[in-house]
Amino acid sequence: MEDISFYREEFLAYLSEKSIVEQPGNLYDPINYILQMGGKRLRPVLTLLGAEAFGVSYKHALDAALAVEFFHNFSLMHDDIMDDAPLRRGKVTVHEKWNLNTAILSGDAMLIRAYQFFENYKGETFRELAKLFSKTAVTVCEGQQYDIDFETQEEVGISQYINMIRSKTAVLIGAALEMGAIVAGASVEDKQKIFDFGCYLGIAFQLQDDFLDVFGDPKVFGKQVGGDIIENKKTYLYLNALKQAGKDEAAQLKHLYSLAPSDPQQKIDAVKQIFIKSGAAERTEEEIKSYIDKALAKLDEITLAPDRKILLRSFGQILMARNV
Amino acid sequence: MEDISFYREEFLAYLSEKSIVEQPGNLYDPINYILQMGGKRLRPVLTLLGAEAFGVSYKHALDAALAVEFFHNFSLMHDDIMDDAPLRRGKVTVHEKWNLNTAILSGDAMLIRAYQFFENYKGETFRELAKLFSKTAVTVCEGQQYDIDFETQEEVGISQYINMIRSKTAVLIGAALEMGAIVAGASVEDKQKIFDFGCYLGIAFQLQDDFLDVFGDPKVFGKQVGGDIIENKKTYLYLNALKQAGKDEAAQLKHLYSLAPSDPQQKIDAVKQIFIKSGAAERTEEEIKSYIDKALAKLDEITLAPDRKILLRSFGQILMARNV
Repeated sequence: MEDISFYREEFLAYLSEKSIVEQPGNLYDPINYILQMGGKRLRPVLTLLGAEAFGVSYKHALDAALAVEFFHNFSLMHDDIMDDAPLRRGKVTVHEKWNLNTAILSGDAMLIRAYQFFENYKGETFRELAKLFSKTAVTVCEGQQYDIDFETQEEVGISQYINMIRSKTAVLIGAALEMGAIVAGASVEDKQKIFDFGCYLGIAFQLQDDFLDVFGDPKVFGKQVGGDIIENKKTYLYLNALKQAGKDEAAQLKHLYSLAPSDPQQKIDAVKQIFIKSGAAERTEEEIKSYIDKALAKLDEITLAPDRKILLRSFGQILMARNV
Repeated sequence: MEDISFYREEFLAYLSEKSIVEQPGNLYDPINYILQMGGKRLRPVLTLLGAEAFGVSYKHALDAALAVEFFHNFSLMHDDIMDDAPLRRGKVTVHEKWNLNTAILSGDAMLIRAYQFFENYKGETFRELAKLFSKTAVTVCEGQQYDIDFETQEEVGISQYINMIRSKTAVLIGAALEMGAIVAGASVEDKQKIFDFGCYLGIAFQLQDDFLDVFGDPKVFGKQVGGDIIENKKTYLYLNALKQAGKDEAAQLKHLYSLAPSDPQQKIDAVKQIFIKSGAAERTEEEIKSYIDKALAKLDEITLAPDRKILLRSFGQILMARNV
């Protein structure tokens, strides 16, 4: 049976075929570099699966999938500047390997070239894809801005936080799927539903990322466990703990989040205890489950034979497989 | 008689009407700020004139004109980072007034929002506008990269230089006009010709900028006279002087271009003399005239009654009015 890795391989072959060999090299080399860094290619694979679910070969969705992958990597290139990140996926980031100006300009070119992949679609399909892409891209920028704003914002509401991760992360997952559905000519209702499916899944995915950052198995989790606590990041766990904890505990948590000790282990342990004791950890797990349930309910609503949804369902499970 | 200032006023009214009042403010305030900085609004006015020339009211071209102005200001916002420029049009640049990350992210959002203005056009018009926009935007990025490359490149050919200014500056002038023609439903041939008209004019405009940087009247020229010489910029004058000067003079010029004296006046005067003596100054004036002639010849070829071309012709003259 064809599984998801088949689509990933097909996408990677197409990506490699479409690598930019044009001049000037200083503009295009960084684009090829970041595209070849690896990664799970979740988003473009979702575009292919979206098309297949609605009965059209993934081959017709390859250009839309490329646009999604170009956009995602454009945003990584610029985000890495903003975060002053030296490494991504174990490799040197573009602004470190080249310089700031290169990372800005190559990123800009990458965003524009993403749009150009839609030119391979005719008429209304082109229009719909470009329109969804722009709307999504603007929302991602807004999400990134809220994320930056929250760093210095005294009070962040839980619904504000959910809205931020929805904008920054989830809408692109939803849009990747919807682009496949657009290519396949799905109905307006089904396009909305597959978008919602992806969007709920994306929120669950990000909440789970927050959870695993604290409670993940250091051997399995890719990043440093406790990283968000070290950086005093106002995550879902933190915001819930503040809300659910008693007055003294909340004050203690705020105090801990004002510290930057050279050895952070004691701080991590103390914050972790508050996350558990206040019920925030449990609340987060419930919320993750609730968003997965919402996602799967949306998938059920889509007017397709169940066997067409198998890969999408299993994709959701793969996305969440770390949740143990 | 309606003149160009009428179109500028109409565009400014529309721009002000479309200022972005959405959240997050930290993303959209810098966009409104740079758009309200002023400037001659040459490019959007050209889009309006392009539509009117082909018999369609400028009102239908206002959204395309906005896209052009958004793109132009997006590129200024990012270029100012790359040039580390503290001021633009006498006002503090975005990365100085806010910070680097804001100037990157707001610039990104501005580029995407430029695309969204095309959504107000139907069917093939939307497609044609978006396609021309992407092609132009990629070319501008390439031109900017060549400009950066030339700073450290030992040998820069004259044709390479012309190609650089064509990409960085001229194609956007051509595309601004062509977008007006697209909105008006002009023929394929006329669209190409009005693009070429703008492109030739854009090259002449940039060459003239190089010329006035050295030979302009300090009272009239907006920037510091001699600025390119101080920065050792490989302009058209410099590249021609190197080519046309005798061996000793060329060596002297190269030597002068390796210096960065605290009082640059002596260096400016010496370089200026070489530009004149080598014949480079005269050659540059001839080349400017040659590109203006090419532009006007293209305008003549367009299948329109002469009275339809009056504003375009006078626009060309306004653009070049500084050439005295």
